[in-house]
Amino acid sequence: MNIGLDIMGGDYAPAEAIKGVHLFLEHTPDNSVHPVLIGNAQEAAPYLHLLEPYKGRYTWVEAPETISMDEHPTKAFKDKPNSSIAVGFGLLKMGKTDAFISAGNTGAMMVGAMYTIKTIEGVLRPTIASPVPRMNSTFNLLLDVGINADCKPEHLVQFAQLGSIYSSHIFGVEKPAIGLLNIGEEEGKGNILAQAAYPLLKEEQGIYFIGNVEGRDLFTDKANVVVCEGFVGNVALKMAESLYHIFKEERNIEDPFLAQFNYEVYGGLPVLGLNKAVMIGHGVSSALAFKNLITAAAKMVSSNVIDAFKKHFATAVA
Amino acid sequence: MNIGLDIMGGDYAPAEAIKGVHLFLEHTPDNSVHPVLIGNAQEAAPYLHLLEPYKGRYTWVEAPETISMDEHPTKAFKDKPNSSIAVGFGLLKMGKTDAFISAGNTGAMMVGAMYTIKTIEGVLRPTIASPVPRMNSTFNLLLDVGINADCKPEHLVQFAQLGSIYSSHIFGVEKPAIGLLNIGEEEGKGNILAQAAYPLLKEEQGIYFIGNVEGRDLFTDKANVVVCEGFVGNVALKMAESLYHIFKEERNIEDPFLAQFNYEVYGGLPVLGLNKAVMIGHGVSSALAFKNLITAAAKMVSSNVIDAFKKHFATAVA
Repeated sequence: MNIGLDIMGGDYAPAEAIKGVHLFLEHTPDNSVHPVLIGNAQEAAPYLHLLEPYKGRYTWVEAPETISMDEHPTKAFKDKPNSSIAVGFGLLKMGKTDAFISAGNTGAMMVGAMYTIKTIEGVLRPTIASPVPRMNSTFNLLLDVGINADCKPEHLVQFAQLGSIYSSHIFGVEKPAIGLLNIGEEEGKGNILAQAAYPLLKEEQGIYFIGNVEGRDLFTDKANVVVCEGFVGNVALKMAESLYHIFKEERNIEDPFLAQFNYEVYGGLPVLGLNKAVMIGHGVSSALAFKNLITAAAKMVSSNVIDAFKKHFATAVA
Repeated sequence: MNIGLDIMGGDYAPAEAIKGVHLFLEHTPDNSVHPVLIGNAQEAAPYLHLLEPYKGRYTWVEAPETISMDEHPTKAFKDKPNSSIAVGFGLLKMGKTDAFISAGNTGAMMVGAMYTIKTIEGVLRPTIASPVPRMNSTFNLLLDVGINADCKPEHLVQFAQLGSIYSSHIFGVEKPAIGLLNIGEEEGKGNILAQAAYPLLKEEQGIYFIGNVEGRDLFTDKANVVVCEGFVGNVALKMAESLYHIFKEERNIEDPFLAQFNYEVYGGLPVLGLNKAVMIGHGVSSALAFKNLITAAAKMVSSNVIDAFKKHFATAVA
């Protein structure tokens, strides 16, 4: 499979992206996963020598323009057809790649996705999910974590469906337990959105809804998937990241569970509800993060999770 | 001053509440703070011997009924006029006490407050705030943390005003920096509420608004007061508490900053916007938490923060 990678995205691009590809190729003896690097050759030049030993195991696609982090997403995507993000989505749409990864402008990534590969029919809004470390084993999935700041109850129901399928295909959870993020345990608690979403989730066939979960349950084994609107999900995610930063990086606490809070471990965030596999990297993505992003995107492809999404929503629409 | 304490509230009442009073009296040689214990003498009997050495330094007020955690707040408050919460608010209203503390049913506490001591004129909604540990020094203040799950922009403006006054009077911050909890740094980011609240906060005289802060900024020195609606505030607070539980209690990590995440350190949460000092304890309040709740309530009284609130809103209304 071919995994497209925007090497111009992220605060330390293109150096870290290229180093990440190097790490990936170095640690992956089989050549079934073929990275397709998309970027500006001149800017990449100082680092491309790293990939000399792996000629033939990756492809270079020139994209002379770059969309910066502070550009307006829609305008930038339209004005820069030769940007790494626009070229990357073009390759994905044409089937030259099977997945696309960028640690660049998230807004431009979402605009690019909507213009090219588009949302799966029946999906109201694509959503960005985040793995969150789970005490005792693997990861829970929290969604949405930032692109859907104002949601309707039916959006949360779809997040639950997408999250459930993702959890089973990617984390191997047989019957993912779905929790609604709320501020109390009982039905009827919460804000207007949570109160309205609860009965819809309860009635929904095909998901295993366990009721409300609270902020204290995110890292436990209470639920495998926690749904919420993107405002609260984003606050929770950034808070968790900051605590990793404070306790690990500033206060040097060594702990295996704390180490799981490092975004580099899971690489980045999947976008769910699109017709192809797309992953978003953290702005500060390191080489290790890019390596794990490639692995995560390859897993999205090999697991056929996108087909499972499509099948689910085709049935739901019919 | 007289500090009313509902000794029947909390999962380990009345034992921990009485032990907390004992701790407080033991560590407070001067007798300017006089606890008024409100509860059921029969249930308290096994523990009251602890207070024998402190006769004269506390008062007992009998309240034979108790409102349990799962009772409907309004109904329970009306049906149980002899409950510790109802009696506690009665004493507060009559001026026999200067503050009231309970770790019991939060809903009943809010109902009790609204029926008796009432909201300060001009305050749209009382709010519960939480201290959150701040790297390098003291505490930031996060509000609302749970009783206002759906807010309008003008509520957030009042939370900012209340939080600013509280921060200066209680934490001694000269010019508290107010942040709006949001999912991006720039003006215009966020959900509809945050987008609408930003310009109002910016225009507001008498507060030092520094703009948006994100989930990652809660424990830093970026802002002294962080305002948000109660849904996201509650999720953030419970998440922070759970991380303390995981890293300190389950994984035995010793770290002075982590130790500050323990709710026992600050005892409980102040309710802001009422005509008298009211504090809410955690459901699992320990003796140490009760001791620190008494200290915190005494600080609310001695700092004259309530008068400062009243002065502010009297001017604002006029």
